[in-house]
Amino acid sequence: MNPSINPPALDFWFDFASTYSYPAALRISERAEDAEVAINFRPFLLGPMFKAQGWTSSPFNLYPAKGGYMWRDLERICADLGLPFMRPDPFPQNSLIAARVALVGLRESWGEEFCLEVFRSQFGEGRRIDDTDAIAQILARLEIAPELVLKAALSEDNKARLRDQTDEAARRGIFGAPTFITADGELFWGNDRLERALLWAKQGI
Amino acid sequence: MNPSINPPALDFWFDFASTYSYPAALRISERAEDAEVAINFRPFLLGPMFKAQGWTSSPFNLYPAKGGYMWRDLERICADLGLPFMRPDPFPQNSLIAARVALVGLRESWGEEFCLEVFRSQFGEGRRIDDTDAIAQILARLEIAPELVLKAALSEDNKARLRDQTDEAARRGIFGAPTFITADGELFWGNDRLERALLWAKQGI
Repeated sequence: MNPSINPPALDFWFDFASTYSYPAALRISERAEDAEVAINFRPFLLGPMFKAQGWTSSPFNLYPAKGGYMWRDLERICADLGLPFMRPDPFPQNSLIAARVALVGLRESWGEEFCLEVFRSQFGEGRRIDDTDAIAQILARLEIAPELVLKAALSEDNKARLRDQTDEAARRGIFGAPTFITADGELFWGNDRLERALLWAKQGI
Repeated sequence: MNPSINPPALDFWFDFASTYSYPAALRISERAEDAEVAINFRPFLLGPMFKAQGWTSSPFNLYPAKGGYMWRDLERICADLGLPFMRPDPFPQNSLIAARVALVGLRESWGEEFCLEVFRSQFGEGRRIDDTDAIAQILARLEIAPELVLKAALSEDNKARLRDQTDEAARRGIFGAPTFITADGELFWGNDRLERALLWAKQGI
């Protein structure tokens, strides 16, 4: 990539609790490099959107046939990609604290690596990601001292930032995750649309 | 394909009203020939499954953000495949009569061509497929006299056959369309899973 030219950009919207966001997150950087597209990681919360549709849990829990299929499909996708796979319990994990910390990290240098580690820990090792201890352990693995980060994550400014990001997701028409949005506003939903989204980002069609 | 050896088989389950079943149906035969896999066309009705989940219409109508996305996504997919695309009105079309006639045709020689013509007419030309006249016109285009076919389609035997096929779809875990099921029971949902399903049918993994 020629650093003197701004590469085309693609926004990668995801919720840490979203199952198909796991393979998307783990493969997006390599695919984007091949396609010479810059990726912006945009964590948000699906929960408020689901609530607005009257859903009290993940649709994968509310519709068991679809949920059973999703787990099998995800297992196959991970096997094809050579990614470890283990179901977290309970599902879905509450992703609030992870998303708040990610927003701190994405303004520093370690945000993307933190996001990948949250996904690996949750869906590769089946660990919980829904409390401060779990997130502190992930930060420690990345050799980041958790105290200041967690304090910044829980600041009113940062909480508002995550609410704004989630509001923006809804305004842009996002209804699930992962979602990819090009600079000209074209929206692609699902891990299986990543390649098409990269092509659109590059070619504008 | 060597006719002396039975090729691996893949069941192609679809509802005529299902939007993503359109590109799947129009491309499956060529892809299957390349993969040396035999396809069984299995029309069924999604309506009873949706009703069992408490849905009174297509989820694409009930969830407008998802529905709006689907139409745009389908438009892009058709453009990529070089398929004409036009939305039928109303959506979804009642697919009962088309499915009953398809079951007659699939026991004769013209079933698959009839299925493709129903999809082309509905999603390529935006025509209705929900009444006897529309189906009679499609049969006429295929140079099939409609009278006997429609009589067979409306026989009690044939009605029961469609109910059985729809019951079988539910028993097999189908919750949407298109769905592909291999001989060893592996289920793949969605037009975008066709290639993976063909590979599984051929390699058993």
